[in-house]
Amino acid sequence: MIKKISHIAIVVPELDEALSFWVETLGLPLEYVEHVPDQDVDVAFLPSGDSEIELLEPIGRDSGVARFLERRGPGIHHICFEVDDIDQMLVRMREAGVPLIDETPTIGTGGKKIAFIHPKGTGGVLVELYEITAEETARRRERLNDMRRRLLRRRRVYAAGIIGFFSGLRTPGDGQNENGGHFS
Amino acid sequence: MIKKISHIAIVVPELDEALSFWVETLGLPLEYVEHVPDQDVDVAFLPSGDSEIELLEPIGRDSGVARFLERRGPGIHHICFEVDDIDQMLVRMREAGVPLIDETPTIGTGGKKIAFIHPKGTGGVLVELYEITAEETARRRERLNDMRRRLLRRRRVYAAGIIGFFSGLRTPGDGQNENGGHFS
Repeated sequence: MIKKISHIAIVVPELDEALSFWVETLGLPLEYVEHVPDQDVDVAFLPSGDSEIELLEPIGRDSGVARFLERRGPGIHHICFEVDDIDQMLVRMREAGVPLIDETPTIGTGGKKIAFIHPKGTGGVLVELYEITAEETARRRERLNDMRRRLLRRRRVYAAGIIGFFSGLRTPGDGQNENGGHFS
Repeated sequence: MIKKISHIAIVVPELDEALSFWVETLGLPLEYVEHVPDQDVDVAFLPSGDSEIELLEPIGRDSGVARFLERRGPGIHHICFEVDDIDQMLVRMREAGVPLIDETPTIGTGGKKIAFIHPKGTGGVLVELYEITAEETARRRERLNDMRRRLLRRRRVYAAGIIGFFSGLRTPGDGQNENGGHFS
C-alpha cells in the first residue's frame, strides 16, 4: 500500500541559487543538505506538510541527474511514494506489465529500499517507490534533534549576548527592580 | 506561510487509461472526478497522505493544458502549495522580482483563491499557490460524506444480497444453528 507522497525531486543547476527562491522567497524550511554519492548529487531537503521538496544539484557530469539537466533543463525530476512493502509493490507492477528501472530494490543508508518505475509505464512520470526502515527513521530523528540542539545553542549564545549587553547598560541601584521591571 | 503540498497535477491524454495505472496498479484511492470548466479539463482527485495526485485530461483543444500535452507530451504539469494568505505571498513574490502568471488571485468555487507563478521565476517548475476557504473545506467535506454514504448504501445492498442468498440456501430444521455455525 502507498502511505503518502514522500517527496517531489526537482533538478537545479545550482543549489544556492535554487534555495534563494524555494527557501528565502517561497518560505519553505531547509532541513538539511547532503551529498548522495550513489547518484553524485547534492540534495537539499525542504519539508512541507508530511512530504518534502528535494532539490538535486548534479555534481559530476556522468550521473542520470546530470544527463536529465543537460537534455531537459531544470524542472521536476520524479515523484516518490512511501510504501509499506516495496517487494510486494514490485510484484504488482510486474504482474500488470509495468516496465521497471529497478527489478529489485536498491538498499540505501539505514536499510531503506528504493526502486524506480519507468516513465513508459506511468504515462510520462518517473515514479520512485520508497520503503523506510526503523533504522532510517531513527537516523532522521537523530539528525533533526542534532539540528534542534544546534539552533538552541545558537539561541542561548545569542540570548547570553543580549543579557550581557543589557547588564553593561544597567548600573547597580539605578532605581529598576531586579528583572528590569519587565516581568510581574 | 506555506502549509503543505496541496497536489501534484499530471497531464494525461485519457483519464480512464491513466486511472488503470494510478488507481488499479499503484493502488491510490480515487476520491472523485469532476469537470473544471475554467480550464476545460476533467480532473481525477487521488488523495495520498495529506496531499493529492490530480490527473488532468484536456477536453477542448484550446486550453493551456491541451497545449502543454501537445507540446511536451504527458507528464507532471505543476505543483500546488496550500498557503494561509495568498495575497501576502504574491506581495512577497513581487518584492523578490519573481514573474507571476496571475498578478491577482483567481477566485474559484467556494471562494478559494488560486494564482500561478511563472516557471521562469522558480527554475523551470510551474508553481500554483492555493488558499482554501472555510466554505470550500465544508464543500469538500460534504462531497466526502456523500461518497461515504453512497459506499455504505452499496455495502448494505450487497450485505442484504448475501443474507438473502444464504437464507435461500438454508431450510428450516437442517441441523445448523441460527447463524449457520460460522460465529461463536
